[in-house]
Amino acid sequence: MNEKIRMAHGSGGDQTSALIRGLFMKYFRNEWNAAMNDAAVLPLSGQIAFTTDSFVVDPIIFPGGDIGRLAVCGTVNDLLTSGSLPRYLSASFILEEGLPMDVLESICVSMQATAKEAGIEIVTGDTKVVSGRGGLFINTAGIGEIDGEPFDFGQVQVGDAILLNGTLGDHHACILSQRMEIENDICSDVAPLVSMMKALKAGNVRIRGMRDITRGGLATVLSEISEQTHGALQIREKTLPVKDSVASFCKVLGLEPLYMGNEGKAVFIVDGADAEKAKKIMQSCTYGENAEIIGECVPGKHPVLITSVGGKRRLVPLQGEGLPRIC
Amino acid sequence: MNEKIRMAHGSGGDQTSALIRGLFMKYFRNEWNAAMNDAAVLPLSGQIAFTTDSFVVDPIIFPGGDIGRLAVCGTVNDLLTSGSLPRYLSASFILEEGLPMDVLESICVSMQATAKEAGIEIVTGDTKVVSGRGGLFINTAGIGEIDGEPFDFGQVQVGDAILLNGTLGDHHACILSQRMEIENDICSDVAPLVSMMKALKAGNVRIRGMRDITRGGLATVLSEISEQTHGALQIREKTLPVKDSVASFCKVLGLEPLYMGNEGKAVFIVDGADAEKAKKIMQSCTYGENAEIIGECVPGKHPVLITSVGGKRRLVPLQGEGLPRIC
Repeated sequence: MNEKIRMAHGSGGDQTSALIRGLFMKYFRNEWNAAMNDAAVLPLSGQIAFTTDSFVVDPIIFPGGDIGRLAVCGTVNDLLTSGSLPRYLSASFILEEGLPMDVLESICVSMQATAKEAGIEIVTGDTKVVSGRGGLFINTAGIGEIDGEPFDFGQVQVGDAILLNGTLGDHHACILSQRMEIENDICSDVAPLVSMMKALKAGNVRIRGMRDITRGGLATVLSEISEQTHGALQIREKTLPVKDSVASFCKVLGLEPLYMGNEGKAVFIVDGADAEKAKKIMQSCTYGENAEIIGECVPGKHPVLITSVGGKRRLVPLQGEGLPRIC
Repeated sequence: MNEKIRMAHGSGGDQTSALIRGLFMKYFRNEWNAAMNDAAVLPLSGQIAFTTDSFVVDPIIFPGGDIGRLAVCGTVNDLLTSGSLPRYLSASFILEEGLPMDVLESICVSMQATAKEAGIEIVTGDTKVVSGRGGLFINTAGIGEIDGEPFDFGQVQVGDAILLNGTLGDHHACILSQRMEIENDICSDVAPLVSMMKALKAGNVRIRGMRDITRGGLATVLSEISEQTHGALQIREKTLPVKDSVASFCKVLGLEPLYMGNEGKAVFIVDGADAEKAKKIMQSCTYGENAEIIGECVPGKHPVLITSVGGKRRLVPLQGEGLPRIC
């Protein structure tokens, strides 16, 4: 077997999926990870959720955030996907020799503030140093507490509504702008969605499931969810919020917001009868002002986009390479 | 602040300690991590232990093991230090472009086998790809279940015995030999110590505390433990087991086994009355055949080495740089 790891293996799209299914799941499959959800639900006295993510974003500081805020939000949002409330976080640093100490300090400050905002406590950590070019990688693992039943996309049924908490593509467009040294006012959307989740639960919204939209974008996420749902997830292009600045950026570069990564956006699938209530609650939350009902679950099997001109297009996962080092 | 990260910050010695105390603890301190133990003990329904470690060893495959076995054992052994039984593991990969797939597969095979041996389940994971030279980093975070009281070095008292489960310096000497392309038969000692811990508990040995001996070596570990114990930890140089091949290697290079990293060795502090029983149990276990009682807790404050010629020397933590990328 002479195949080598390529950048596409980290894209979050089909090649990543092939790597996980073909290799990691070949060896690691068990009853806890077989569903390949973002967080494992573990029977340990009560039920806890446990998840991990490594962050390699380049540049490490960008408009709207930095690798530290990203590392906290990414894992916190992954914990939310299980229906758990984030409680405990680990933080493990791989530091490249030459990383300025004040940069590292600013990242710690950012992590502390973000953890506080998200209501999670950083309880354990590790530090390694390697040679390199003065950057760093951060791994965070998280534990969440499950009160009630974990979310289950297997419960999604025809008539359920699909909601999105805001504009697509911000983080992706921000990182790419930085990488290309394009000057604009695009900021990353990196944010923890804990208070929004709490508000939805407090409002008795019947949430079937939630997924944060990172590498691979909304299209990839919906494709993955569709493997678990009964019925087809159908969204309408004209309801998808995209900021003007991001839309212009995408037009120039030929990018498709449906496949762009975000770090503070999620799809929520809720009981159809609760859709309007959920939208109002989300719009009242920080990070939810542009929330929209973007579609619904209809009879069928595959996820579908109703285009702006009324056509129907099957949604497929991201193919090939995504933007490397986006998170 | 223009200080930069240097290799010494990752040595596990004084500079690492300074970084953790001066920076990470400045921002992250809370009641769960204030003791700066290897694993956090968390009240979550019952009590669980939660720990994390990133692994950057170079070379990634070495005599006696590989980065995958290391990543499982390191976190498993850290969980044991809290008195917990390892239950769940996360595995997060940062892969460098160009890593041969068969190498990655062999590492997965190794992780699976080691997890099985240690009785822990890999329940969640993540994959990123970065440019580089075809290597990889692995982060593992672990959750352990605490049955009874967690270990507490604050319970150590005068008269307690200090035991070591085998020879010092094997992993360090192995990695350094590989790095220097020196041909010898030195193998890493990388191993999970779960069955040994279970045997000691089953034998009703009153264990006060346990610490695995990795970066910084036995001297650094005893110095760190001493900050929590009542009384001074005193060990005898002539009781410290070192393999002939490792001793020769150290002599040639002027290395001191007390400061060398291991990956399957730990100090156990037990009630003095249980010392002989503990030694016999350890010697009957895989990875414990060379176990020895190496010292005891005596009146005093600082850890002490009684040298082979009968002198006394205060043990201090590793100063400056250790061997980079040893784990």
